[in-house]
Amino acid sequence: MPLYFDHAATTPLHPKALESMMPFLTDNYANPSSAYTPAREARKAIDHARQTVANAIGANPEEIFFTSSGTEADNWAIKGALEASKGKHIITSTAEHHAVYYTCRHLEKLGVEVTYVPVDKEGFISPIDVKAAIRPDTALISIIMANNEVGTIQPIASIGDLGVPLHTDAVQAVGHIPVDVNNLKVDSLSLSAHKFYGPKGIGALYIRKGTPIASMLQGGAQERGRRSGTENVAGIVGLAAALEASIGTIPHEQVRLTKLRDKLINEILSNIPHAALNGPKDNRLPGNVNVSFRFIEGESLLLHLDMQGCHASTGSACSSGALEPSHVLTAMGISHELTNGAIRFSLGKDTIEEDISKLMTILTKSVTRLRELSPLYDDYIKKEGVSWNTLKK
Amino acid sequence: MPLYFDHAATTPLHPKALESMMPFLTDNYANPSSAYTPAREARKAIDHARQTVANAIGANPEEIFFTSSGTEADNWAIKGALEASKGKHIITSTAEHHAVYYTCRHLEKLGVEVTYVPVDKEGFISPIDVKAAIRPDTALISIIMANNEVGTIQPIASIGDLGVPLHTDAVQAVGHIPVDVNNLKVDSLSLSAHKFYGPKGIGALYIRKGTPIASMLQGGAQERGRRSGTENVAGIVGLAAALEASIGTIPHEQVRLTKLRDKLINEILSNIPHAALNGPKDNRLPGNVNVSFRFIEGESLLLHLDMQGCHASTGSACSSGALEPSHVLTAMGISHELTNGAIRFSLGKDTIEEDISKLMTILTKSVTRLRELSPLYDDYIKKEGVSWNTLKK
Repeated sequence: MPLYFDHAATTPLHPKALESMMPFLTDNYANPSSAYTPAREARKAIDHARQTVANAIGANPEEIFFTSSGTEADNWAIKGALEASKGKHIITSTAEHHAVYYTCRHLEKLGVEVTYVPVDKEGFISPIDVKAAIRPDTALISIIMANNEVGTIQPIASIGDLGVPLHTDAVQAVGHIPVDVNNLKVDSLSLSAHKFYGPKGIGALYIRKGTPIASMLQGGAQERGRRSGTENVAGIVGLAAALEASIGTIPHEQVRLTKLRDKLINEILSNIPHAALNGPKDNRLPGNVNVSFRFIEGESLLLHLDMQGCHASTGSACSSGALEPSHVLTAMGISHELTNGAIRFSLGKDTIEEDISKLMTILTKSVTRLRELSPLYDDYIKKEGVSWNTLKK
Repeated sequence: MPLYFDHAATTPLHPKALESMMPFLTDNYANPSSAYTPAREARKAIDHARQTVANAIGANPEEIFFTSSGTEADNWAIKGALEASKGKHIITSTAEHHAVYYTCRHLEKLGVEVTYVPVDKEGFISPIDVKAAIRPDTALISIIMANNEVGTIQPIASIGDLGVPLHTDAVQAVGHIPVDVNNLKVDSLSLSAHKFYGPKGIGALYIRKGTPIASMLQGGAQERGRRSGTENVAGIVGLAAALEASIGTIPHEQVRLTKLRDKLINEILSNIPHAALNGPKDNRLPGNVNVSFRFIEGESLLLHLDMQGCHASTGSACSSGALEPSHVLTAMGISHELTNGAIRFSLGKDTIEEDISKLMTILTKSVTRLRELSPLYDDYIKKEGVSWNTLKK
């Protein structure tokens, strides 16, 4: 069995989710828009799923719209709000997920103005900065609830008070920490099933009743006319089953994973010299560890770990392979060298304490080996006159 | 077992499709954008699926982009072409699927001009009319390959010669009749898995190399930067497996279903008075039968059929429940009364000759019963002095 430390990239499908999906992948294949008995059963299953999602985030079922992904939900929330409003200005942060960041960049090309509020060295935005950026023509504020790379949990509720429509990408938060749309005071919220043990290819957008958001997909008027396309019945049902299962375990898992997370952080910082935690110690997602190792490349370390059956990520999975420095770490003011050596270990429901010990053994050896090969480390040793074995941070 | 005559609405998942999906719903849950071994396997599976889809329609794999549905593919093809071009004019027909029709209607609100080329009484457009509608600022022609309600197969290749970028919604065609993007001379083409025994929630857009189409979803740069969102690996693999299975059976199924279709049409027209075929006798999808029954409501007939375990549709599944008269039948010049009494029976791979006989028994009884209850029919009998039993068309 591999050591899977990439739950922020995606999660295994929960057995209960798969079980709930199977009838709609076999016997009941009806189109829920059709008018006969199995179709009405498929429709009922969708309605039930919608209620489950609504319950999970403190919403009403008529405020939940299923999408194909968190990315679609983000694009819809932002582009739809701009199209529906007279505004020409968006406020977001410098440390958003790419689905928000590149949507805003795209809108800039179409004439929309965007203010990118900075984050501090732990990845937090300041509600004061957000407030200061508000203009009479501000159509939307979009701030990520919990950062996908460093786990920083933003003070969303304080932004919800500012009187401007607020969207949050809660893709990393939902199913992992308590999320309530009324406590957060958000007008729209994105979530994605495969981040909480649901299937890939399905997500949802919460739209508060009365919030003007234009549709992005025209067609057969599914989702009460607001998101067309034949419903992915199995996906929707699987999303709801996974969410229900995840929500139920939050009180316990949040505590358990926070302990494991802190154990891993402490062991890395105590045992591996020249390692630095990225992101905060508190107000951080329970499963998120992001550490930079000086003198080595994150990509090389990933390959080394993979060869030993250990799966992790450099920052966002979406940009793995792109080899661009993380815009989130860069926005936090982290040096180019440390950004290059950053690795995200994300823990999940199947992670146990033993996995942390196994990871530490592999990780320590891998970092040592890569530093032995590193010209940067070699230069450092020559200059400082010390070696790995005697180095402690 | 119900008598399923609604394959144009959706189809059962092919066992081979489900089999191909299962590994990605269980053991291999990796995010294909990640950098470790199982992720690379997921990536390979997507690449293989892309090659399969490309082979099926005579395209190159780099011209295939997976989407969440045919609806998304249609929206993308049209909105993306408009955004990427300087043009402000679209040509389409009056008998498109809602995903094209309402996308065009939406664009009209945003200042785009749309010419809706008429169809004749069998649902055919005329390439001459399309040519006549071309303006210097025409950005795109979008014409459905095979109509979803009446099965009319349009002369797409004749439109491909006109020198304007051409999109076709081939959702009802792919997997059922031969589709080759070069024979058709199209620049973009939409398809949807669940119409050819694949899963719901996955489709694809073919974009000919060099065709300028702006992205609709910004984010993590999946699908070579053109369609962001974590890939629905199971869905993509299932789409390809279903397409491969369907393509292989076209030579045989096309002949078999055409015979069954014509048998059903002939039996209805010979045995049920006041019934009329909608759409053409030739150049029609092999599995499509669309018939209007005078004096009764299609919706009532559907319910009657459902109670007897027979599943069909009034026109498009997408607008079932909407109770609006079909815009396709209306565009064909069919009277309001006949449009209201229209039923689509769509045949598929599991339909056998015996099903046609069973359907005829149920249908004849149901139409008789509903006409007995119909005040319209009562008026007609009083006026004409004949009854059901003696009536032959």
